[in-house]
Amino acid sequence: MNFTIKKALIAVTNGYTSLDVQVTNGIITAIGENLAVIGTEINGNNKLLLPGFFNAHTHSSEKWQRGIIPPLPLELWLAHLYDFAPLDTEQVYLSALGTAVETLLSGGTSVVDHLVLIPGKELETITTAVRAYQEVGIRAFIAPLIQDESLTAGMPGGKSLPEHESYFRPTAETLAIIEEAVIKFHHPESGINILVAPTGTQLCTDALFTGCIELSDRYNLCRHTHLLETKAQEKLAAEKYGCTAVEHLNKIGFLNNKTSLAHCVWLTDTDTKILAETQSTVVHNPLSNLRLGSGIAPILKYIQAGVNVTFGCDGASSNDSQDLLEAIKIGSILHNVTDIDYQHWITTRQAVEMAALGGAKGLGLDDQLGSLTVGKKADLVLYDLTNLSLLPRTDPIGLLVLGRPVNVVDYAWINGKQIIANGQFTTVNIDELRTELFNRSQWETREKSPGLGQIEPHYRQVMGL
Amino acid sequence: MNFTIKKALIAVTNGYTSLDVQVTNGIITAIGENLAVIGTEINGNNKLLLPGFFNAHTHSSEKWQRGIIPPLPLELWLAHLYDFAPLDTEQVYLSALGTAVETLLSGGTSVVDHLVLIPGKELETITTAVRAYQEVGIRAFIAPLIQDESLTAGMPGGKSLPEHESYFRPTAETLAIIEEAVIKFHHPESGINILVAPTGTQLCTDALFTGCIELSDRYNLCRHTHLLETKAQEKLAAEKYGCTAVEHLNKIGFLNNKTSLAHCVWLTDTDTKILAETQSTVVHNPLSNLRLGSGIAPILKYIQAGVNVTFGCDGASSNDSQDLLEAIKIGSILHNVTDIDYQHWITTRQAVEMAALGGAKGLGLDDQLGSLTVGKKADLVLYDLTNLSLLPRTDPIGLLVLGRPVNVVDYAWINGKQIIANGQFTTVNIDELRTELFNRSQWETREKSPGLGQIEPHYRQVMGL
Repeated sequence: MNFTIKKALIAVTNGYTSLDVQVTNGIITAIGENLAVIGTEINGNNKLLLPGFFNAHTHSSEKWQRGIIPPLPLELWLAHLYDFAPLDTEQVYLSALGTAVETLLSGGTSVVDHLVLIPGKELETITTAVRAYQEVGIRAFIAPLIQDESLTAGMPGGKSLPEHESYFRPTAETLAIIEEAVIKFHHPESGINILVAPTGTQLCTDALFTGCIELSDRYNLCRHTHLLETKAQEKLAAEKYGCTAVEHLNKIGFLNNKTSLAHCVWLTDTDTKILAETQSTVVHNPLSNLRLGSGIAPILKYIQAGVNVTFGCDGASSNDSQDLLEAIKIGSILHNVTDIDYQHWITTRQAVEMAALGGAKGLGLDDQLGSLTVGKKADLVLYDLTNLSLLPRTDPIGLLVLGRPVNVVDYAWINGKQIIANGQFTTVNIDELRTELFNRSQWETREKSPGLGQIEPHYRQVMGL
Repeated sequence: MNFTIKKALIAVTNGYTSLDVQVTNGIITAIGENLAVIGTEINGNNKLLLPGFFNAHTHSSEKWQRGIIPPLPLELWLAHLYDFAPLDTEQVYLSALGTAVETLLSGGTSVVDHLVLIPGKELETITTAVRAYQEVGIRAFIAPLIQDESLTAGMPGGKSLPEHESYFRPTAETLAIIEEAVIKFHHPESGINILVAPTGTQLCTDALFTGCIELSDRYNLCRHTHLLETKAQEKLAAEKYGCTAVEHLNKIGFLNNKTSLAHCVWLTDTDTKILAETQSTVVHNPLSNLRLGSGIAPILKYIQAGVNVTFGCDGASSNDSQDLLEAIKIGSILHNVTDIDYQHWITTRQAVEMAALGGAKGLGLDDQLGSLTVGKKADLVLYDLTNLSLLPRTDPIGLLVLGRPVNVVDYAWINGKQIIANGQFTTVNIDELRTELFNRSQWETREKSPGLGQIEPHYRQVMGL
C-alpha cells in the first residue's frame, strides 16, 4: 500500500517541524514540505511520527503466567515458571498474538521472541509463532530458546547438588531442529527472521554455542542469548570457565555485530570493552531486572564505552507487561541514581534513538530500519498527541517517554503495511483475542512450586542467605 | 446514593472470593454472600473490588511542564520549574482537575496536593483547587506549599553563594494565609482537607515550622513536608542544624502520627527509628526519585523498622505521569535490587495495602478509610478484569500491580458517590478538559533556563562534579 502522511510532527535538531512523508512499496520515498499525495492520505495533524521501536527481548508464552509468580530471584522464579507452565500450541499462538499486540500498542513494530519450545513439538511451536506474527503483521525475530543442560546445572556451587540429570535431547538434535526452522521460515523479506538463541552460558555447553555459531555463519543469522542476568550466573561462569562469561563467549567467537545480549547486569569493565570491540548489542530489560532483583545494569557505562544499547520488555512473567514505553521510561530514568553527574543521564531523544535505531543495529539492520530516512523501510508509528495522557502540550517526545501514555498509537505501519488505523487493529480482532485469553485461564493464586522446595535451600546457601 | 455491588472479586487470605457489598449513605454497611440489593445494583462479575488508593504526594500545577524539563537533579530542575512556570488560576484549576482525573483512572480516590501558590494570589489558588477537586469529587488533601527562604538558600555550601535575597513575604503573613484557608475550606466531612505543609527544611525557618505546628494543633490538621529528597539536602541539613533533618524536625516537634514525609531518600538508621517512634509516614515517590537522580529510598528498611509507607506520584514535571499504579509497581519492585534476600521483598498484596491503608494511616484516617471494612467510608474502585492488559486471568492483584493496566477502572465511588461508571466520569467532561489543556499549551522544546546558569557552577562545585 502506498500512502502519504500530511503534516506530521517530526523531531529535528532542537525542536519539531511539520512535514509530509511519502511511502511507496514499503519504502520511505520522500520526506518534505507540501509533498504530493501518493496513495492514501493520512492526516498527521497533532500527531508525532516516529520510527517503530524494537521489543528486543521477550518470551511470548510467559504471558500465561503474568502477575502470578511471587517476588523471587531468577533462579527460584524459574522453578515456578517451569513447574506451572505446560503449554499447548494454541496457547503459544495466543500469547504470541497478545505479545505482538501489546508491543504495537506501545510503539513497537519489531519483536525479538526468545521463544520457549514445547518439548517434542519444537518445530510446531515455531510454526505457530510464525503464524501468529504473520497474522498481526509485526516484524518478527523468532529466537527459539535452546539449551542442552538441565535446570540444576544453572546454579553455582553445583557440586554440592545431586548429579545433574542430562538434558533430555542431544545437542545435535537441537541444532537440527533450528536448522530446519531456518530453512522453512527464515525469510527476512517477508518479515520473519529466525535467530540462533542458546538460552545462556548457565545452561548451554560450548558444543551448543559452537553449533549456533556455525548455523549463524552458514545462513547469515543473528545471534541472541541471555548474558549475566544475575549474580548467581556471574559466580557460575567463574566456576565453569575460570574467566567471565563475556571473555568465554568472545573466545569461542559468539560475539559479533549481529549478536544481541539480554540483561548484561554483571559485566566487568573488561567485558564492556569486549562488547564495544565486537560491536555486540546490550538489550536492557529494566523491569524484569528489578522484578527479579537481578540488579541495575550499568547502562550509562555501556553507552560511554560505545556499546549499542536497546530495550526489551522481557517475558510477561518477569515484568509483567509488554509495554515498550514503560521499558523505555524506566530503562532511561533508572540510571540517574547510578551516576551523580547528570550530564551522563539519558535524554528522551537518546532513549527514542536507542529504542529504534539501537534495536535495528542489534539485528544488523540499521541500514534498513530504525529512523525516518528516505530509502529505509516504512516501519512507522503515528502517535495521537491530543490524548489526555499526553496533555498539556509540551515536548512531544518528552511526554511520550517520561509520561505514561495510554492508547496513544493512532497509526502503525510495518513494511508499509497498515496494522493500526485510528487506534484500531486492522489485522487482528482484539475482542476475539480477549475472549480466548479469558476462556483459557482462571483466577488463581500461587502456592510454592514443588521445584522450588528442591533448590531453595541450596540457593540460599550458595548466595550466603 | 445507596448501592449494592453484586459478586465482585474480593481478596481474602490465600485467594479471592466473590462477594456482595452494600453501601448506605456513603458507608460500607455490609459485605457478604447473597445480600439484598439496596439502592442501585452494580454487576461485579469479573471485576476486582479494592479500597481506593492515596496519591499521597503530588503538585498538581506541575502538569503544565510535564515532559519538558531535561534530565537534571532536583536543585537544577527547580530552576527550570520556577523560571518557566508563571501560573494563572485557570491553569491551577485545569491541572488540579487533570491530576484528579489521572489519579482516579489509576485507582486513587484521595490526593494530597502539595499545592504551589501563585504569589499574591495565595488564597485564590487554594480556592481554585478546592473548586476543581469538589467538581471531580475526589477526596482532597490540599497542602499549600509554603516556604520563607529564597531558592538559593536551598543549596548546601551556601556561604560561597552571594547573599540570599530574603523571601518576599514575611513568615507571619504566610501563616495567616494558611489559617484563613483552614477556616474557609477545611471541612473533612465534605472531602476537603487543608494541611500545614512547609516545603522542607531546605527552604523553611524554624519559625515557619513552629507556626505550622501551632496551626496543626489548634485546628487538628495533618502535617506534610518534603524530607531529605537529595544528597544536597542531607549536606545542607548538616550545615544548618549540626544534626540530621529528621533529628531537627523531631526536636522541634513536627513529627507525629498525622505527619507524612515525601521522599525520605537519605535517612540514617537513627532517623528511621525516629520515624517509627513518632509514627510518621513515609510517602514513597519512586518515579521522581529516579527521574531526578535523587536516589533509591531504603523502603525495605523502613518497613522492617515498622515505619508506615505509602506511595505518591509526585508532580508531573518530575515523573511525568500521575498514574498511581505505575508508582505502586515501580515503588515495589525497585527495592528488590537493594536487598539480596527475597524474603524481604514487597508482595503485591502488601503493595496494595500500602497504597490504601498506608495512605489512610498517613493522614490519621485509618479508622475511616483504606480497607474494605464494614463501617468505613465507601471510597471504592471496581476494576474490569476482562481488559486486555489484565489477561490472561491469573492473580488479579498481581496483574494489577505488576502489569501495566490501561483503562481498567470501571467504577469508582468516593464517600459513596459515584465518580466513574462504565469507565466514564460522571462528574466531569473529559473532552472539555482535553480541549482546554490543548488550547492553553503549545509544542515546545526547552532551552537552558536562565536561573540554571546562575546556580549550576556552584552546584557542580558543592557536589564535587
